[in-house]
Amino acid sequence: MTCERKFMSEVHSRRCSVTRFHFLPLIIFLVGLHAVEGIWPLPQTMTSSAERYSLDPQYFNFNYGRDSATQQGCSVLDAAFKRYFSIIFPDHISDKLSVFAERAALNAETVWGALRGLETFSQLVYQDDFGIFFVNKTEIEDFPRFQFRGVLLDTSRHYLPVQVILKTLDAMSYSKFNVFHWHIVDDPSFPYQSRTFPGLSSKGAFHPMTHIYTQSDVRRVISYARLRGIRVLPEFDSPGHTQSWGKGQSDLLTPCYKGGIPSGTFGPVNPASASSYQFMARLFKEVSAVFPESYIHLGGDEVDVSCWKSNPDVQVFMQKMGFGNDFAKLESYYMENLVNITSALNKTSIVWQDVFEYHERVMVEVWREGCYLCEVRRVTKAGLKVILASPWYLDLPGPTHDWVRYYTVWPLAFKGTEEQKKLVIGGEVCMWGEYVDATNLSPRLWPRASAAAERLWSDEKQTSSVARAFSRLQDFRCKLLRRGIQAEPLFVGHCRHEYQGV
Amino acid sequence: MTCERKFMSEVHSRRCSVTRFHFLPLIIFLVGLHAVEGIWPLPQTMTSSAERYSLDPQYFNFNYGRDSATQQGCSVLDAAFKRYFSIIFPDHISDKLSVFAERAALNAETVWGALRGLETFSQLVYQDDFGIFFVNKTEIEDFPRFQFRGVLLDTSRHYLPVQVILKTLDAMSYSKFNVFHWHIVDDPSFPYQSRTFPGLSSKGAFHPMTHIYTQSDVRRVISYARLRGIRVLPEFDSPGHTQSWGKGQSDLLTPCYKGGIPSGTFGPVNPASASSYQFMARLFKEVSAVFPESYIHLGGDEVDVSCWKSNPDVQVFMQKMGFGNDFAKLESYYMENLVNITSALNKTSIVWQDVFEYHERVMVEVWREGCYLCEVRRVTKAGLKVILASPWYLDLPGPTHDWVRYYTVWPLAFKGTEEQKKLVIGGEVCMWGEYVDATNLSPRLWPRASAAAERLWSDEKQTSSVARAFSRLQDFRCKLLRRGIQAEPLFVGHCRHEYQGV
Repeated sequence: MTCERKFMSEVHSRRCSVTRFHFLPLIIFLVGLHAVEGIWPLPQTMTSSAERYSLDPQYFNFNYGRDSATQQGCSVLDAAFKRYFSIIFPDHISDKLSVFAERAALNAETVWGALRGLETFSQLVYQDDFGIFFVNKTEIEDFPRFQFRGVLLDTSRHYLPVQVILKTLDAMSYSKFNVFHWHIVDDPSFPYQSRTFPGLSSKGAFHPMTHIYTQSDVRRVISYARLRGIRVLPEFDSPGHTQSWGKGQSDLLTPCYKGGIPSGTFGPVNPASASSYQFMARLFKEVSAVFPESYIHLGGDEVDVSCWKSNPDVQVFMQKMGFGNDFAKLESYYMENLVNITSALNKTSIVWQDVFEYHERVMVEVWREGCYLCEVRRVTKAGLKVILASPWYLDLPGPTHDWVRYYTVWPLAFKGTEEQKKLVIGGEVCMWGEYVDATNLSPRLWPRASAAAERLWSDEKQTSSVARAFSRLQDFRCKLLRRGIQAEPLFVGHCRHEYQGV
Repeated sequence: MTCERKFMSEVHSRRCSVTRFHFLPLIIFLVGLHAVEGIWPLPQTMTSSAERYSLDPQYFNFNYGRDSATQQGCSVLDAAFKRYFSIIFPDHISDKLSVFAERAALNAETVWGALRGLETFSQLVYQDDFGIFFVNKTEIEDFPRFQFRGVLLDTSRHYLPVQVILKTLDAMSYSKFNVFHWHIVDDPSFPYQSRTFPGLSSKGAFHPMTHIYTQSDVRRVISYARLRGIRVLPEFDSPGHTQSWGKGQSDLLTPCYKGGIPSGTFGPVNPASASSYQFMARLFKEVSAVFPESYIHLGGDEVDVSCWKSNPDVQVFMQKMGFGNDFAKLESYYMENLVNITSALNKTSIVWQDVFEYHERVMVEVWREGCYLCEVRRVTKAGLKVILASPWYLDLPGPTHDWVRYYTVWPLAFKGTEEQKKLVIGGEVCMWGEYVDATNLSPRLWPRASAAAERLWSDEKQTSSVARAFSRLQDFRCKLLRRGIQAEPLFVGHCRHEYQGV
């Protein structure tokens, strides 16, 4: 299974991979501007003419090229051919496909690159007023600017049904996102059903049966994502943000003290107790097996040390370790242990920027407001890789018609060496769950996340004009509607096929 | 058809109508606080106990009371019984209903009051963990604080499919809204398919076939609304906001001039031309017949007079009429003519506050920001009735979790006589369409509009606490989800039955 092995390495090679993988479908990479508003995100180079070809769904076919390293039987592309046929010809029932004279070529280094090419091709096809499908003569060479293009979903503050996650993965692939950062647990609830510690969800989920992700749910999400060229990056955030963990795992959290006696409340994971690390080792062993992704997100953000300060056992431990009163050292010690655990499982750790001060074996996700580029500069100067999230907190209240705010982000506009800039491996749209669940996720994400997607994929100079992007994004949003994505409007107007509601 | 005739008079009598209409369904108006979070909007008086009765869907029945003026055959209540049975017992297929020993009474003066009572009753029923339905012993007396409780939808800036409007009517009835203000046409498009002037939509709609409301669509909306106790108030806004009208009706709009010659652009309806009034008379004759509602909204807002100023014919007309350079007088003259047209059709006119200066035979809708209560005071001092919309522009950008902003509105908190306060007949939630269509309408409306609904229905003193309202509104939002309304969350948490997405 060539096409499967390659997936795990794509994040490293994708950045500059020019498509070289061969197959010969009807992907007439030959297209023009007539009636096609354009491609979103914008390809790196694209030349087209008014010359156009009609496509007859009856005879349209995708085929592997004779010289292609990958052939029929590659589940990813077999499935993608089927999927994109329906996307390109939405009303057509494919009964019998046969060979056709006209041909077009899509060359890609990896199957994942081929998936992106299929998406591009699907956006090139349009229908005239009589329903005839057309594609214009076009040549495109394309590759992403950044290798990490993520969307974070938070399934702890509100539970998201699996269907809703799958739908989001569909929409992500249309904007060429390639990482689903699954912030699966947090303070309010623990929906992940662990094989090793079933009590975590049976006691920590909002509901032990209806508001959980079973092992089979997780497998389904991973498999669905993989077929769309999307990696699933799980986050098990600790030592803070773990209130829900404590419900099913007693002795894990730090008991807080008040006036010399336990107050009955609990703080972050207890870093002074050996059992905490034993628990984490067992949990991450399971998580590493369940999620094939080579990266793992350990969180590490917003640790409130006041409870640690109040706890006599933690105080004793601080003295024993020689940390004095520096709780940052304690936090560092805790994270060090976790990085060791996950390293031993052959996973590379990603952490929120809060942890950056203390570690060098991690990738850092910059999320705080303010001068986030200052932080990017600082982290890259230390030689660490960076994922940028700060400017793309799409859940935040504010004008909702503000795609421009997410479009006019310049991730490399900091003073630094070329080496430093290369350490910025990408960015991520964050959809935190305080005010978001299945009812409003889609319109809040799309098409605003697509604005960020173009920033992460396309050449910055070619996509610096908001005015020029606007009509192309409007057109792309209509395409999303046509594909069943509940993407909200950018401004007054209409799409040929409106969302029909429930 | 007693139950039909009463509808048109309800807006006048509802304000203080204590329910006196009799029928005897299983509406055990007998309910307590156990497991029921409460009713939204809050009834005027409600006493309840922990004593509870179980309801068996197999034997549950709605019946007309023996002494009731209305009996089986009243389409509104027959349909409501069926509808509310499914709402109360969502998973139960009603096969055979029969009589049951326990009884409860709902007394209402009108069928419309009975509908509100059914809604209240449906919110009193709850299920325990074993799925058994219960209702606690309760007595409720209820009536609305304001007689006009509206929701405005704008179907011109974006087209809303009929299904989406119907769904909104469902949700409106759950919050006891009783007026659907249909801002059906405006500058961007003219989706109303007129019998008299078919060119208006064939040329002025976004699409002449798919983005229009046919006569049958409009009838369907009116009939669906009526069954839910909701009046449909049409707005044909003029003389401004009429760009789309000009496409199908040449000579209607004012040609703008630049440098002494027509610039090719058009302004508001031409007030200097007799043909404009002839056209309006014919259009409103049709509209009056299509919409049975006794009120009609004439718009009149935001008239840009610069085009009138530029036009030589308008200038000549101004001199002839002795208006000098006072274009407000011209606007007043125009509106006066329109009010005459609709008065002759036995309709009462509602206008946006802009027109207030010039007219005395209208109801005024206050919409501008700033000190809106100053305006309410001014209008009521002049003896005119007021509908308040300013604080309830829910489409406006801003934090989306701001239901509190829409809840803490005090419509009568202005200095004025009792007579003046009585002239404030209600309020309206406005959902303008610049950034809203079928994709995001529901989560943006609900449950935020419900916050306004309680303000318009319930006693102000009993509902002044945001803290106490919060959990009741959270619970109500879960009820909306259960009924298929895509209502967004207020904060972290969950509902037993989540929205399952598309």
